Amino acid sequence: MSQTIKPAAPDNGAARAMLYGPVADQMVEVEDLLREQMRSQFPEVDEMVRYGCLLGGKRLRPALLLLAGQAVGELSRDHIVLGAVVEMIHTATLIHDDVLDGAEMRRHLATVNSRWDNAASVLLGDFLFTHAFYLASTTDSTFACRTIGQTTNIVCEGELRQKCNRGDLSLAEDDYLQIINAKTAALVECSCQLGAHCAGGDLQTVARLARYGADLGAAFQIADDLLDVVGDPSTVGKTLGTDLEQRIATLPLIHAMTSASDSERERLEGALAAGGAIAEEALESSLARHQSIDFARAKANGFASRAREQLNGLPDSPALQVLIGLTEFVVQRSH
Amino acid sequence: MSQTIKPAAPDNGAARAMLYGPVADQMVEVEDLLREQMRSQFPEVDEMVRYGCLLGGKRLRPALLLLAGQAVGELSRDHIVLGAVVEMIHTATLIHDDVLDGAEMRRHLATVNSRWDNAASVLLGDFLFTHAFYLASTTDSTFACRTIGQTTNIVCEGELRQKCNRGDLSLAEDDYLQIINAKTAALVECSCQLGAHCAGGDLQTVARLARYGADLGAAFQIADDLLDVVGDPSTVGKTLGTDLEQRIATLPLIHAMTSASDSERERLEGALAAGGAIAEEALESSLARHQSIDFARAKANGFASRAREQLNGLPDSPALQVLIGLTEFVVQRSH
Repeated sequence: MSQTIKPAAPDNGAARAMLYGPVADQMVEVEDLLREQMRSQFPEVDEMVRYGCLLGGKRLRPALLLLAGQAVGELSRDHIVLGAVVEMIHTATLIHDDVLDGAEMRRHLATVNSRWDNAASVLLGDFLFTHAFYLASTTDSTFACRTIGQTTNIVCEGELRQKCNRGDLSLAEDDYLQIINAKTAALVECSCQLGAHCAGGDLQTVARLARYGADLGAAFQIADDLLDVVGDPSTVGKTLGTDLEQRIATLPLIHAMTSASDSERERLEGALAAGGAIAEEALESSLARHQSIDFARAKANGFASRAREQLNGLPDSPALQVLIGLTEFVVQRSH
Repeated sequence: MSQTIKPAAPDNGAARAMLYGPVADQMVEVEDLLREQMRSQFPEVDEMVRYGCLLGGKRLRPALLLLAGQAVGELSRDHIVLGAVVEMIHTATLIHDDVLDGAEMRRHLATVNSRWDNAASVLLGDFLFTHAFYLASTTDSTFACRTIGQTTNIVCEGELRQKCNRGDLSLAEDDYLQIINAKTAALVECSCQLGAHCAGGDLQTVARLARYGADLGAAFQIADDLLDVVGDPSTVGKTLGTDLEQRIATLPLIHAMTSASDSERERLEGALAAGGAIAEEALESSLARHQSIDFARAKANGFASRAREQLNGLPDSPALQVLIGLTEFVVQRSH
């Protein structure tokens, strides 16, 4: 249940072109603004901040913010600023996540905590959070500040809940869904909402784009959690199976636990507590017996379909086509 | 160079009355708002957030925000909201600080990292930061968001600089002063500035109150760093000598290192690297030889005087008297 959303490997130019096509020029502006803003006049701090800038990856959230804006109306300077803001917030949560997880690699780069230390990660994450809030406040109204403040608070609450539930392998599916909605989907939702709002979308259109983002984000996170169980380490930039190692229950395991008989559940819990090959074999066999991988895939597909439905009624445009394409792209990742 | 500012022991009612006297009613409102806002609908999160609420201590920053406002004009709802905001931000930085320092006690309470763990501290700090930003955005204009975003970013940059310079016992006095201005004085300055601004103060008055806060904050931090060297563990709520243990250079040591001959400096550095009683004896003897404690006290007095001068020309009022009193109070702490 790592928070990363990776629509493709970092060097997948085709995926990037598909994502950014209609908003490629504005994505360059976001990137320039990020590079300009993620600096410090103090060399020792500057080095860290610029390194942090590299960790975010594919810039999916700014891309969604711009695409949602373009699907609804005209892009403005606020879109560029808020694109940088959501990316900074995302990066801050990743850097803090890596402390919690003790992760060493992130997108083929050493994490901040492994290159420097935990203290550097905590402070660098704080630096990015606070700078993002400052940047948001340079837009015209308090709308962006309020939306971003509220969203990031939901993200943190979701992360806290996940942390508190660590080790609870009998987490209910509803709790799992609430947690991924908070810790992942909320910022994707916020990105789409801000994009549509700043392009002058009416209330209903902004709400539909927000809903699109929420459902897309949930589909992404379920697919990401699936990758943690079934994926191949060479295609993603981190060690796999980390959720299980950290005793975080994700959808495939939750489904298997719920479907299992009392005795099977007890055996599985025992094996997972033992760890190593015993845990892996028991998990694989339970997941296969209850078709839990298929169940989780179907759930991700369901969210992706709901996301697509939110787009009905929007005028056709290259940006709309990318938003539609993303709903398919996200669930293909775990196949 | 811990970031705590403690004008008195937690049960010092007289000091509290002196601080809050003219704004006692509004301080109750701030406290009520903090209690109301620092909650979560999820019991596991709620317990942590409410505990975090206890750690801030004397509520000095909201008190200054209210006093600065009252010294300049009328208090409004925005003062209450922003009072809660600066306290939440202060608490967030303390909680993250305790992770960096591995501190176990804070104001006679177990720190979040020792009662729960580092992950809880990181996320709880983030929760408070983001909630503070959200609350700030509920005020009328983007002014508060911008000021708070900018200030917290400066605080984090100061903390990052301190972290990067850890172990550098030959830190220059100017760098030390820049760091304490960023990591401590900036939020005190921001509190006074917001208080005066929201009470309708003109530009010059707001700037003077801001300057008052900056100088008061610097005096506080130097006095706090002095307490770390000369203080008595029974009067403050934390283990003493932590700066030295963590190889953070503060003003008394910086002065002694600067005043010492090359050979004395080398001996002192060697003794400090050795640690334990050898380090303590060498430090005590160097501090005494160069009268470095007196030097640091004089520096704190200098900042306190400058703070007091900023208040010249304000109409007399009970709030003004408290602001004046605080400039004396802060430097008496280390005597």
